[in-house]
Amino acid sequence: MRRWSAVLQYNGGAYRGWQSQPHGVTVQQRTERVLSQIADHAVAVHCAGRTDAGVHALGQVIHFDSDSRRTPDNWLRGFTSNIAADISMSWVGPVEQEFHARHRCCRRTYTYWIDNAPQPLAPFAGLTAHFPAPLDAEAMHRAGQVFLGEHDFSALRAAGCQASTPVRCIDQLQVVRRGRWVALTVRANAFLLHMVRNMVGALRYVGSGRGDAGWVAELLAGRDRSQCPDTAPARGLFLVRCEYPERFAIPAAPELTAPAGVLGG
Amino acid sequence: MRRWSAVLQYNGGAYRGWQSQPHGVTVQQRTERVLSQIADHAVAVHCAGRTDAGVHALGQVIHFDSDSRRTPDNWLRGFTSNIAADISMSWVGPVEQEFHARHRCCRRTYTYWIDNAPQPLAPFAGLTAHFPAPLDAEAMHRAGQVFLGEHDFSALRAAGCQASTPVRCIDQLQVVRRGRWVALTVRANAFLLHMVRNMVGALRYVGSGRGDAGWVAELLAGRDRSQCPDTAPARGLFLVRCEYPERFAIPAAPELTAPAGVLGG
Repeated sequence: MRRWSAVLQYNGGAYRGWQSQPHGVTVQQRTERVLSQIADHAVAVHCAGRTDAGVHALGQVIHFDSDSRRTPDNWLRGFTSNIAADISMSWVGPVEQEFHARHRCCRRTYTYWIDNAPQPLAPFAGLTAHFPAPLDAEAMHRAGQVFLGEHDFSALRAAGCQASTPVRCIDQLQVVRRGRWVALTVRANAFLLHMVRNMVGALRYVGSGRGDAGWVAELLAGRDRSQCPDTAPARGLFLVRCEYPERFAIPAAPELTAPAGVLGG
Repeated sequence: MRRWSAVLQYNGGAYRGWQSQPHGVTVQQRTERVLSQIADHAVAVHCAGRTDAGVHALGQVIHFDSDSRRTPDNWLRGFTSNIAADISMSWVGPVEQEFHARHRCCRRTYTYWIDNAPQPLAPFAGLTAHFPAPLDAEAMHRAGQVFLGEHDFSALRAAGCQASTPVRCIDQLQVVRRGRWVALTVRANAFLLHMVRNMVGALRYVGSGRGDAGWVAELLAGRDRSQCPDTAPARGLFLVRCEYPERFAIPAAPELTAPAGVLGG
């Protein structure tokens, strides 16, 4: 059996998240069905980040095993031709047997995309969360630095989280504004269930003047989920990058060089 | 009766275009239903550009008459609270009785958004057309200048077009590339049915080396639709701006300052 890895993108709007489950269609089910067709045998897929219902991806990394004689080009063309338009594959290639999309992933990056204007911008409603009240992105950025480093993130952890420990290590967090758009990008070794969306919920409080860095530090130290503001909606969240040790040679996710910047300007 | 104008945005993916019709849901139907609820009487809406099925808008301008005592804020909040998430309103205000969204519109601008990379980028699949073969955007821009000025655009006109004349005047056309994205933006007094999408079809030939400016000039002069390459799909097309004489004080559509440029970077 040869081991393969691939980088996937998806619009999570129509899916019950990544992971297969009894009710509703998931990205994993769709992906396994198409890869199994191409392989001509049942293919099981493992991913780097099991995204929730409605969450999008630009750089989800997967691996799967197959003994069928397919070239990277066969997989890529077969996948693109047969998968739904809301899922895509930017790369696929053979990897060492020791590679594992989840266990070998050393850093995951998520971006949360906020439409911060009084009225929403409908064409992008499925890819952003609309927060009408003005947000101070610089204050959110400053307060967000409280999350950097290794912490017990119980305060930002959803009730159903099955991780063995609430300790995670964040090594980068930035909040930037460009016009009406505010984006929070955060990188960590791994994340707890709803951790980024709860982080956005907390920093939204800061951005609207209802809290500051001290309040965030207290929230984190309290380790009490009930003290955290509402979880931000799934539709603004993108898994943008999954990183691995260099020897596995997994390419970066597609870069988004101002896609819509060319629109309307 | 007071006359009102408004600027709308929509993701056309779920609609049979702007105009009300017996089968399928349209943006006009949805808009009229919500405005009628707010007004508490039947409201008929006129628009600047009757977009086709699947076409999006960032700056569709409408007008309607109502004798109900509503403030701009009443209309705006009522609309935003009751309309589907794929339609939005950025502005509404009273206008002179002489204002008419279609008849007074002096310039319309459309942008066509192409995802030009070997594999599509799924999260944006509903807002772009994926053309995998490499396009030379500069060559498309140069050849596109052939369309500038007043011409008989019969070569780019769909069979069902009901305009009284095929003559239109284009005063601006640009094709730009940013990374994987290629956008064609074109401004004219008005457009024929499928004119922008046929223009994209023709310039796609140029971008992939199958034609040049001379070929475009010949195509245009021939006034024969059967000589024009395939119509580009609706899902990449946005009505981005509708302009009026200054005295009507219709505000510009929301600007898109690199919305997704903040993603993944």
